[in-house]
Amino acid sequence: MSSIKVVEGGVTAPEGFYAASYAAEIKYKNREDMALIYSDELCVTAGVYTSNVVKAAPVLWDKAITDSDEKVRAVVVNTGIANACTGEKGLEICKKTCAAVTEITGDSEKSVLVGSTGVIGMQIPVDKIVAGAKELVARKERSAEAATKASKAIMTTDTVNKETAVEFTVGGKTVRMGAMTKGAGMIHPNMCTMLCFVTTDAAIDKALMQEALSDVVKDTFNMVSVDGDTSTNDTLVILSNGLAGNPVIDKKGEDYDTFKEALFGICRELAMRMAGDGEGATALFEARVYNAKTKEDAKLMARSVVSSSLSKAAIFGHDANFGRFLCAMGYSGADFDQRDVELTFMSEAGEMKVFDHGEPLPIDEERATKILSEKKVTIQVNMNEGDKEATAWGCDLSYDYVKINADYRS
Amino acid sequence: MSSIKVVEGGVTAPEGFYAASYAAEIKYKNREDMALIYSDELCVTAGVYTSNVVKAAPVLWDKAITDSDEKVRAVVVNTGIANACTGEKGLEICKKTCAAVTEITGDSEKSVLVGSTGVIGMQIPVDKIVAGAKELVARKERSAEAATKASKAIMTTDTVNKETAVEFTVGGKTVRMGAMTKGAGMIHPNMCTMLCFVTTDAAIDKALMQEALSDVVKDTFNMVSVDGDTSTNDTLVILSNGLAGNPVIDKKGEDYDTFKEALFGICRELAMRMAGDGEGATALFEARVYNAKTKEDAKLMARSVVSSSLSKAAIFGHDANFGRFLCAMGYSGADFDQRDVELTFMSEAGEMKVFDHGEPLPIDEERATKILSEKKVTIQVNMNEGDKEATAWGCDLSYDYVKINADYRS
Repeated sequence: MSSIKVVEGGVTAPEGFYAASYAAEIKYKNREDMALIYSDELCVTAGVYTSNVVKAAPVLWDKAITDSDEKVRAVVVNTGIANACTGEKGLEICKKTCAAVTEITGDSEKSVLVGSTGVIGMQIPVDKIVAGAKELVARKERSAEAATKASKAIMTTDTVNKETAVEFTVGGKTVRMGAMTKGAGMIHPNMCTMLCFVTTDAAIDKALMQEALSDVVKDTFNMVSVDGDTSTNDTLVILSNGLAGNPVIDKKGEDYDTFKEALFGICRELAMRMAGDGEGATALFEARVYNAKTKEDAKLMARSVVSSSLSKAAIFGHDANFGRFLCAMGYSGADFDQRDVELTFMSEAGEMKVFDHGEPLPIDEERATKILSEKKVTIQVNMNEGDKEATAWGCDLSYDYVKINADYRS
Repeated sequence: MSSIKVVEGGVTAPEGFYAASYAAEIKYKNREDMALIYSDELCVTAGVYTSNVVKAAPVLWDKAITDSDEKVRAVVVNTGIANACTGEKGLEICKKTCAAVTEITGDSEKSVLVGSTGVIGMQIPVDKIVAGAKELVARKERSAEAATKASKAIMTTDTVNKETAVEFTVGGKTVRMGAMTKGAGMIHPNMCTMLCFVTTDAAIDKALMQEALSDVVKDTFNMVSVDGDTSTNDTLVILSNGLAGNPVIDKKGEDYDTFKEALFGICRELAMRMAGDGEGATALFEARVYNAKTKEDAKLMARSVVSSSLSKAAIFGHDANFGRFLCAMGYSGADFDQRDVELTFMSEAGEMKVFDHGEPLPIDEERATKILSEKKVTIQVNMNEGDKEATAWGCDLSYDYVKINADYRS
């Protein structure tokens, strides 16, 4: 285990990275709704995107860039309108947004990534986003405050902003990695979450960085579900400007492992925060399945449990209705024998086994309610069939989820 | 198109079938919670069951019987406790329930099917269910009233009972088919719905009846979703006692087609009613996808749309947020190009196209709200990519769904 230390500064923690935010009034009024990440040096990139065949324009724009050898200076993000299902006009808006930045920087027009989140099927007012992009470049700052404001400017129905940063050592040099993300609804990532941007000053080969990112996402953002809806806009991008001066990580080994461990830690932390801040959530709901026959089975079962509307409603109601969790494991696609299974509810208030090798155990309802009333509730499932495990994160299903989503556009 | 006429009598409409109901107080008080279907003659059977690997005891019991050549006299159903995740004791309860009936009839102990619905992971009080089964046989009646009371006795959170019956002609003889079902929650069938029992006096070969049933379920009950949770107890069983005196349907042809058409009509009707009576539902939500490349794609997309929490919440809010429907089609697993797609909202209040070949259309919000405020709302999607179609049924997602499920056990 290498030493990874949490530091201040979010996306601006790594050397040479700036952030900015601005109220462009794209859809929301009276709040900042655009954010910028900017680097002194052009960055090597990697990205993973939604598997939804209906991909938003910014996803198409960014993927073409991170799949190529283009280097990137900046990321411009807006909230309010997702620029999804917007046809050719939508792609034109990505292009104009980037041009607004490159007119200032003089870089190639493919040096700017874009991210959008909000309502699908609505066009972004082009004048507002172009003016906003220029304003952001003018306002960029290397400060923790600017990073925090940027992480707030990308929120939709999130109730808290989500950013983090760490410091660790690669090849004798201190390097840093920062990130900001937004989540809340339409969260059932199948490449990654809605929007997450990671910055680092560690120098690393592009292909290795992509491999690390693709690998890390599987056990972090892809194990989160808020509502089972895989968004059109899911985007996870990492930018590396190499300013830490470490010897370039260009092969697997100790340095690569350290880099990947830091990236995993950041993605896991933000994935959990995103789950706990799911739309309407009153609790973070974690499912850990262990001693499963295969890793794939463990993942299917853990993810199925946190995705089940009935399991989520039971958590909201602090109801030890464990049959719903077994039911969700049963339809997950994993194969198992219920006579092998032990199921335990856990939280800071204690733990209670409720099902043991095919038989329900007597439940002390009062104690169960106490355990299930904490802000983080874990369902721990011992399959007793192998040695593989997986953890998934979700949230409870509350009245507020319905309220938030019954009339989201207005 | 043959002539199929709706008639009274539910499961007792076919010749020789009886029904009964009884308040056994298995879990609910002050209401009837057990039902019986009974036939003068032993019946040929067919069944389809949940694909959930956690199968309830009654599913294991019934499947062993309908997969064999055993003939069946009766079906005993209880509500309140599902007898799922109950280990060996659960199977023992099925056995004792059947024995209570066969002690009276003198038939083989495999001549009785059982059905249970309710809380998972709780044992049924054996004395109550055994006493109830005996009482049911004593009370059986050939009357529409008895059939209706039986269809009410199997309800859980359903708000209305669901039964139907039809009359048609096979081989010159008038035959009848009746059915009752219950639905409401944990409804995302993957073989069939929670509980549905079909009776017929048409004489038909067992293998052909199974083939018809397995085929019909794919486009009826398997196209319904209330909450994405595939139950441990899904059971669809048909009993044929042959008392109509028609020449046995023992090969494919006109008679088989007529029989299958009647079965399809009954299952489709009850599937739609089940969707419209989903837990907390204020509207029946239908998705019709047509001109798709393949039938499988059309089904994936239609089912994904009615299963999407965000689409369901939009219907509850009467909000023409069509991007959510496109998003759900996009992550369904079907392959398509959004630039081919036309999307139209329809109801008794009119219709409105909102998306046309990749571009959003301007929306008259007031009219859209009016269209989306009816008791049945249809999303019609023209893929313009082929000639295959599918329809799926669901319901909106309301505060009441959360309320019902946050504290279901108490």
